[in-house]
Amino acid sequence: MAKKVLIVYAHQSSGSFNAAAKNAAVEVLTAQGCIVDVSDLYAMGFKATATAEDIKGEVKNAENFCYLEESKLAWEQGKLSADIMEEQSKLTVADLIIFQFPMYWFSVPAILKGWIDRVLTNGFAFSQEKRYSQGIFKDKKAMLSFTTGSLESMFSPTGINGDMNVTLWPLQNGILHYCGFQVLAPQIFWAPSSAVAEDRKSMLESWRTRLQGLLEEKPLSFISLDCFDDKAFQLKPEVHEKHASKEFGLTVGIHLNKPLPPHSQMKAGC
Amino acid sequence: MAKKVLIVYAHQSSGSFNAAAKNAAVEVLTAQGCIVDVSDLYAMGFKATATAEDIKGEVKNAENFCYLEESKLAWEQGKLSADIMEEQSKLTVADLIIFQFPMYWFSVPAILKGWIDRVLTNGFAFSQEKRYSQGIFKDKKAMLSFTTGSLESMFSPTGINGDMNVTLWPLQNGILHYCGFQVLAPQIFWAPSSAVAEDRKSMLESWRTRLQGLLEEKPLSFISLDCFDDKAFQLKPEVHEKHASKEFGLTVGIHLNKPLPPHSQMKAGC
Repeated sequence: MAKKVLIVYAHQSSGSFNAAAKNAAVEVLTAQGCIVDVSDLYAMGFKATATAEDIKGEVKNAENFCYLEESKLAWEQGKLSADIMEEQSKLTVADLIIFQFPMYWFSVPAILKGWIDRVLTNGFAFSQEKRYSQGIFKDKKAMLSFTTGSLESMFSPTGINGDMNVTLWPLQNGILHYCGFQVLAPQIFWAPSSAVAEDRKSMLESWRTRLQGLLEEKPLSFISLDCFDDKAFQLKPEVHEKHASKEFGLTVGIHLNKPLPPHSQMKAGC
Repeated sequence: MAKKVLIVYAHQSSGSFNAAAKNAAVEVLTAQGCIVDVSDLYAMGFKATATAEDIKGEVKNAENFCYLEESKLAWEQGKLSADIMEEQSKLTVADLIIFQFPMYWFSVPAILKGWIDRVLTNGFAFSQEKRYSQGIFKDKKAMLSFTTGSLESMFSPTGINGDMNVTLWPLQNGILHYCGFQVLAPQIFWAPSSAVAEDRKSMLESWRTRLQGLLEEKPLSFISLDCFDDKAFQLKPEVHEKHASKEFGLTVGIHLNKPLPPHSQMKAGC
């Protein structure tokens, strides 16, 4: 059966490098027989802010409105606003989600954070029991594809912005892996706006080449949920002990006070 | 002269724990003689998305709109939209900025990311020369004050969400320190929604106590800009060598492939 791909795209301009990267993904994946859908957030005027208007009708507790709880309830009762439900439908059928964006302030632009805050509803995208390796979307893949303003050297463990693996951890672990997604290595376009036209072209060519095998790629490594106890959610003593003599921590975040495993948020198999 | 404090506050409800934390800050700091201003983002209906409407009149390049460049130009020409200019005025006079928010997806809510994306304009808040320890706001202090859904144990180097120091790095280094702010230790309210009323009360009491000495606190440690060369922005060989025999990396991001310095994004003097 044809694979379904959703591209969540956040750039204001159709003339941008991000637009070209998005168009390349649509073309190459469609040519492979995939069915590709694009959520063009700026063009859609996508609402970024999580408010009571996201819920149709009365909220449960207007005095002390808690978005996490109210949106969960609204999802259960089919009362989420139409724009959220539409995005959730696209996500439900997708096998792979590609987030295409320019990095703003070491993270995603606010309009894309808004998609994350509003669409990945409590209950729909995660629950206390269903998260990380047991997450709701564990049969789906997801990846970040983004441009930076900084050069690659600046995002190294000796560079001024620090290791990109650290910057990616909250996004790739805290959002994508949290919902269970198998996280494919990020596609990072280093400072295309500082590059000459020829280099920009070759960045896109290399993305096109990667896209051809993207759906068969091995995902990044994270830690299985059953390595943690279910009260304090600490690494089980036996897992900790087993890893005691190893040189590196398990992941960027679960580093056990050891050096971070190199490239673990950038390359599969690290 | 009276110190000026700006609280950038992002919660939907005046009955929330975040509202109580914000109110405590207003009260205690005002009682100390500070002049406190609050940007209540949801109440203001603050626009979160970075679009061409943020610029009055014609943009320079509509075909290939680049927010970073266009907003810089608009700032230089006094053509930024009124809501952005208003926030920039508040920031300009402030000695301390407190960001008060519930953590959403290992980061700030989209509405607050929108404030960051739109208000910290290229030119106004940073430039290629003026950033990090030479940053434009180096005479100001800033801090994060936030609630989590997760317990503290879950955000440790052996916990399921990984070390909170890692999660804070992109926010505290990539946004606050990038603009030059002296970054005060974060105020983290661990899972108040899971706590009993008495514990929530004591969390607020401890915040009130901290607020009394807040303006005299020593900031977190980062690395001086002159430790990096000015081409690839890599740590200078002499700094690297000087640190070679040390047990820990310099910071969370500039970790030199050593273990991360413990608590360095959580406590001053680490």
